[in-house]
Amino acid sequence: MAKTCPTTSLPDLPSVRHEVSTALTGFLDAKDQAAPGTELLYLTTTLRAFLTSGKRLRSVLCVYGWQAAGGDGELTAAIRAAASLELFQVFALVHDDVMDDSDVRRGQPSAHRALATAYTDSGGPQGRAEAHGLGAAVLLGDLALVWSDELLHSAVLDPGRLADVLPLVAEMRSELMYGQLLDLQTTGRLTGDVETALHIIRYKTAKYTVERPLHIGAAVAGAGAPVLDACTAFGIPLGEAFQLRDDLLGVFGDPAETGKSILDDLREGKGTVLMALAVQRASSAERKTLRALVGRSDLDEDLAAEVRAILESTDARRTVEEMITERRDAAFAALDDAPFPAAAVAQLRQIALVATERQT
Amino acid sequence: MAKTCPTTSLPDLPSVRHEVSTALTGFLDAKDQAAPGTELLYLTTTLRAFLTSGKRLRSVLCVYGWQAAGGDGELTAAIRAAASLELFQVFALVHDDVMDDSDVRRGQPSAHRALATAYTDSGGPQGRAEAHGLGAAVLLGDLALVWSDELLHSAVLDPGRLADVLPLVAEMRSELMYGQLLDLQTTGRLTGDVETALHIIRYKTAKYTVERPLHIGAAVAGAGAPVLDACTAFGIPLGEAFQLRDDLLGVFGDPAETGKSILDDLREGKGTVLMALAVQRASSAERKTLRALVGRSDLDEDLAAEVRAILESTDARRTVEEMITERRDAAFAALDDAPFPAAAVAQLRQIALVATERQT
Repeated sequence: MAKTCPTTSLPDLPSVRHEVSTALTGFLDAKDQAAPGTELLYLTTTLRAFLTSGKRLRSVLCVYGWQAAGGDGELTAAIRAAASLELFQVFALVHDDVMDDSDVRRGQPSAHRALATAYTDSGGPQGRAEAHGLGAAVLLGDLALVWSDELLHSAVLDPGRLADVLPLVAEMRSELMYGQLLDLQTTGRLTGDVETALHIIRYKTAKYTVERPLHIGAAVAGAGAPVLDACTAFGIPLGEAFQLRDDLLGVFGDPAETGKSILDDLREGKGTVLMALAVQRASSAERKTLRALVGRSDLDEDLAAEVRAILESTDARRTVEEMITERRDAAFAALDDAPFPAAAVAQLRQIALVATERQT
Repeated sequence: MAKTCPTTSLPDLPSVRHEVSTALTGFLDAKDQAAPGTELLYLTTTLRAFLTSGKRLRSVLCVYGWQAAGGDGELTAAIRAAASLELFQVFALVHDDVMDDSDVRRGQPSAHRALATAYTDSGGPQGRAEAHGLGAAVLLGDLALVWSDELLHSAVLDPGRLADVLPLVAEMRSELMYGQLLDLQTTGRLTGDVETALHIIRYKTAKYTVERPLHIGAAVAGAGAPVLDACTAFGIPLGEAFQLRDDLLGVFGDPAETGKSILDDLREGKGTVLMALAVQRASSAERKTLRALVGRSDLDEDLAAEVRAILESTDARRTVEEMITERRDAAFAALDDAPFPAAAVAQLRQIALVATERQT
């Protein structure tokens, strides 16, 4: 069980992160102890490793949503709701890596790769390692998903309040899966369809990563429609800006800072707004180059440099920077009109700055 | 929405199945209508096809559990809880087929195969079909899982009652996943470990398929500990007997009746009680044959006949028949002591007979 932490002022980022980690550790310790056998350690060890490395963005937004709705005093429920979002995010990442067949996540082997290695290390035959890793990762994701639910249910002890929170969680989950489906259908099909690319990031990121965590935290504090609406007005543009920044970092970022490859997005042929803009504006020679290179699994740094040159020459990169600025400013403007306590507004403004700033 | 169906006598099996199907159709219709785009039809069409073909065993047990706890009158909540178990079962089957890489389910292509075909039919490149089918099936299973939750939440409208039901659902889900993990770890490793094989069917089937559906239905009706305990005393032996029967049918059954191959279990090297008994008792020549044949993906009918001969000569088949009888009788004995209404006892006795009877 998470220890309770009464507070009179708003908690800072490091203490939110620390409390969320404590709640997650306590939950998984209890699961390990209650398990009918030690076999489960095989999955929970990998799950713990994943949970250690997250940035806790959704957690922080959940707690800030709680504060925006006037939550104060006893933080436990908000922290546990936040921790449940982290477990849900592990589910999303592990299954996403299975779907994309990605080798690396957060600078470490992805779950299905790590579990394939664990299998052969424990004497499993090499010939079954890949299939085993995949099956075990699907199961690990499933477990993270159902446990995220349990952690949430244990967080909100008032049944009436829980009944307000659950529909928002249900929306968040369906929205993410809708975004994943669009992603799956468009990946590898290079198009200049900027509208579709924006539609995807609205579901995959703006709602899932920003709006809904704010909503869920706010609902834990008993928020009504005006607060939830203000969370949307702030969260959607911020979430879009955040994903647009992430897409830029996925191609132009510094792997040492971002912890992810700057070749993977190009190798997968991810249908980002950045790429759609470039395809739309490219000369026929440039378009030919993009079609030849983007989506190639053996794309190397030299070929990536050719693609990057086209993202620059078509001004796709500059346009995405402008789109980020517009959306960040819209998020700021929404804060000016929001019925949130001043301290919560200040924290949300700060996180909006950090999540969208240039790092290159 | 499911239509309400007040009743004065206990509903029969066909009407339970019909009401559950109506509830599922209504739920999915609402999901299709509320979707942000038509893309979702891609998954819901496959999901509907899967839901059409089930035997509704868990549904029936859920409704019978509700009756055993004295539920009467308005059936809607029990039917919707039952329908949510069917969605959960689709999740379990779809992910199970991904994990086992099975081609066939309920006489039809498994979800990942069906979705791979849908992908190429819609113009997707052949080279990506397998990866796409796998990714889409993982997503389909995820969606079925979170929607099973939503359907349950919408079934039990009293927040206090829902708070009694949710922990039982959480237990059921964790137990199934624990069983799946054991299954994953033992598949392909032929052993004479009967204890482990029994442990697996307790989690994968006895709890998941019988005990917990009874519990969940009973909790929807507001059951206390004596009713829940009696459900366990009846459900665990019945569930074990049911799985032992299923294992026999998986090797000796008539595919025209069971709708599943009688080669798949042998090809996968599934660690059943039947097989563990045979390995334990086999002569060294027989054991050598089992090790050479069980788990071979190209096992044909002639080779299967060799394996079946060993399952007979070691008396493994006969012992499993005896284990089924013992467990069925234990389930009957538990009914004699159960604090259930007489009509519910009669129905549970009937289902226990049907679920465990010889069909070969």
